[in-house]
Amino acid sequence: MSLHVEILSTGDELLTGQVVDTNSAWLMDRLWDLGVMVRRKTLVGDDRVDLDAALRETTARAELVVVSGGMGPTEDDLTTEAVAAVLGVPLELDEPSLRAIEERFRRFGRTMTPNNAKQARFPRGAAIVANRFGTAPGFSVRVGRAEVVCLPGVPVEFRGLADEWLLPRIAARLGDVPASHLVKLFGVPESHADHAMRPVMDDPANAGVRFGFRAHWPEIHVKWSVPGPDARARSDRIAAAVRAVFGDAIWGEGKDELPAIVVARLAARGERVALAESCTGGLVAELVTRVPGASSVIDLGVVAYANAMKERLAGVPGALLAEHGAVSEPVARALAEGVRAAAAATWGVGITGIAGPTGGTPEKPVGTVHLALAGPRGTEHVQRLYRGDRDRIRLTAAYEALNLLRVATR
Amino acid sequence: MSLHVEILSTGDELLTGQVVDTNSAWLMDRLWDLGVMVRRKTLVGDDRVDLDAALRETTARAELVVVSGGMGPTEDDLTTEAVAAVLGVPLELDEPSLRAIEERFRRFGRTMTPNNAKQARFPRGAAIVANRFGTAPGFSVRVGRAEVVCLPGVPVEFRGLADEWLLPRIAARLGDVPASHLVKLFGVPESHADHAMRPVMDDPANAGVRFGFRAHWPEIHVKWSVPGPDARARSDRIAAAVRAVFGDAIWGEGKDELPAIVVARLAARGERVALAESCTGGLVAELVTRVPGASSVIDLGVVAYANAMKERLAGVPGALLAEHGAVSEPVARALAEGVRAAAAATWGVGITGIAGPTGGTPEKPVGTVHLALAGPRGTEHVQRLYRGDRDRIRLTAAYEALNLLRVATR
Repeated sequence: MSLHVEILSTGDELLTGQVVDTNSAWLMDRLWDLGVMVRRKTLVGDDRVDLDAALRETTARAELVVVSGGMGPTEDDLTTEAVAAVLGVPLELDEPSLRAIEERFRRFGRTMTPNNAKQARFPRGAAIVANRFGTAPGFSVRVGRAEVVCLPGVPVEFRGLADEWLLPRIAARLGDVPASHLVKLFGVPESHADHAMRPVMDDPANAGVRFGFRAHWPEIHVKWSVPGPDARARSDRIAAAVRAVFGDAIWGEGKDELPAIVVARLAARGERVALAESCTGGLVAELVTRVPGASSVIDLGVVAYANAMKERLAGVPGALLAEHGAVSEPVARALAEGVRAAAAATWGVGITGIAGPTGGTPEKPVGTVHLALAGPRGTEHVQRLYRGDRDRIRLTAAYEALNLLRVATR
Repeated sequence: MSLHVEILSTGDELLTGQVVDTNSAWLMDRLWDLGVMVRRKTLVGDDRVDLDAALRETTARAELVVVSGGMGPTEDDLTTEAVAAVLGVPLELDEPSLRAIEERFRRFGRTMTPNNAKQARFPRGAAIVANRFGTAPGFSVRVGRAEVVCLPGVPVEFRGLADEWLLPRIAARLGDVPASHLVKLFGVPESHADHAMRPVMDDPANAGVRFGFRAHWPEIHVKWSVPGPDARARSDRIAAAVRAVFGDAIWGEGKDELPAIVVARLAARGERVALAESCTGGLVAELVTRVPGASSVIDLGVVAYANAMKERLAGVPGALLAEHGAVSEPVARALAEGVRAAAAATWGVGITGIAGPTGGTPEKPVGTVHLALAGPRGTEHVQRLYRGDRDRIRLTAAYEALNLLRVATR
């Protein structure tokens, strides 16, 4: 059974570009796991005309409309009023919700402002969804043939209520779900991935399968969705074929994240890594330590911008810096070996490069990066020339370093 | 003059939650600077029925529709075909675009795949927008009373073409623009900001002004938009009133970013900072070094997870760690002072805490963070208890550290 789901997000802050609506992407990802691809997402501002129109349009098309935002305490939070207006019912105070809001403010020792009481009013007939993650309860109400679920836009509240209330409800409504899967590549351009996938996509055995590609810099994802009764077995056969096409360019599948893979492999082997970063400025350390439990595999990260610090903390000889320059193979190797020795770690990573926008030369243009990985079997080095701006160069270099670690810990 | 602008983004990858549509937020932000708030954003998948319907609906409402994505080389890139179908015109090959694509592949030494030629076909009558940032040209075409501008979804291409072609075109169409401004706070909850702003919002002198709040964790933004002929002067008077309300909780205004403010202040004073991070895992270093030119103000960052590394690299005495535990005021102070001394920097920052999800105790629950800033006038320390998940705790702690530096370098 499929379900026509649409998302309606509201808030001027989303239309002024100050906030990216990450709740929608998060919910879409969770729904994809249930075999549901959201049909449409609409974003309107804190404007009653636009919000009312969007509510009427989405509820005319969809079976389920999830509304995010506009449930805060301020005067530009209009979702609840708009839903009541579209339904033609009044707002009513819900005493249990008011008491819960009062209790929450007491518990955190904060003063409840009069505008917070607004968050306890709902369209008549709505089913109220208690919110233990924040102040504003959510609610659910039927508009025509659609169910409208309104949740607060604060991410921790939206996701908390979706996880514990909305998604189980949707899963219960669904029967058979299609099988979907994706593999994640590093170092392969999107159009080459498409070209390489042709034989798999054109295989008559894969008729009816939907394939897709996406560039999520610096990752490329190849995904597919298989309908029908033997969906899982067909999807598994496709996965085997795709692995044969891309081999080691595949670093992960499904929900895999490269930093988490590296942390898990190091932990499984009882190994530890030390990092000496120059142009990436701590990004590799940040990506690794974002993973819960990273403390068991990372000993030390050094961000050594200044040459004196490269000497002192990673033991890079001053003569090497003078002779080859900071952005060079010998310095990358010395950083990796020096930080490995300083931390007595299994692995040492050294990264030095020119992230830009300035600092490039004809011999060493912006985007030049030297990476080295020192380990029990010696030190390997790669030189790269990345395209793009400072952020892209730094992120690609950080991925390259993690990928070197992944391959080395296979 | 105002302009009704809508954004239409397309791509299954945006509806499966694998990619967040950051192009839209970026464009909205740029348009806001021109005094234009986008009226609506619509997101549909790689589905001709949905894409055609969305094109018809948006062009019926808006004066300008900006379409992002669906212009790649793969079979699920449908934007160009859909626009031609809605217009009822055929696609035609544009020879100069084909030659430019071929030339681009030659230049980068890559093999042009047959599907790339698809990117040189456009609806008859379209004005083609050459793309020096990537492979697919954009195009512009009139549908009814609306202008439809289609740009490739790859962020560097979308933003490059918008900056050099689309935005100057829009600016030329606009006359008088309203004055808008925003201030950025740290450490003030959104509902308190709203409450504190009441006297300014209710001031009769500010009639007709639109105020808004947003939580962009861990920042809170307060913004306003003033219409009319003396908009700039009125906005400046509001800014003065808002500064009086929030005082030093305001760390920036407009496009200010906290890391860039800190880097600029340190650079102006000829001072340098060294960082010793534990629970933030390199996040402060990463935020600082993301700013171009950061190399002139950051000497050293140390990510010292292991106690041995705290001893060796930041000179934290082992006895201190044994007596107080790694997450304590004495260790935060020792980290700050040790890393400052090691790098002979003006400032030293020490951060130690429990980011979770595990590692908390009744005495030191998850979210406990000790921060210290060592400088020419001694060392200051703050203890915090942050709420939220690992990412939130780390980011708030990193902001707190940057904010300490900001206040100290005033």
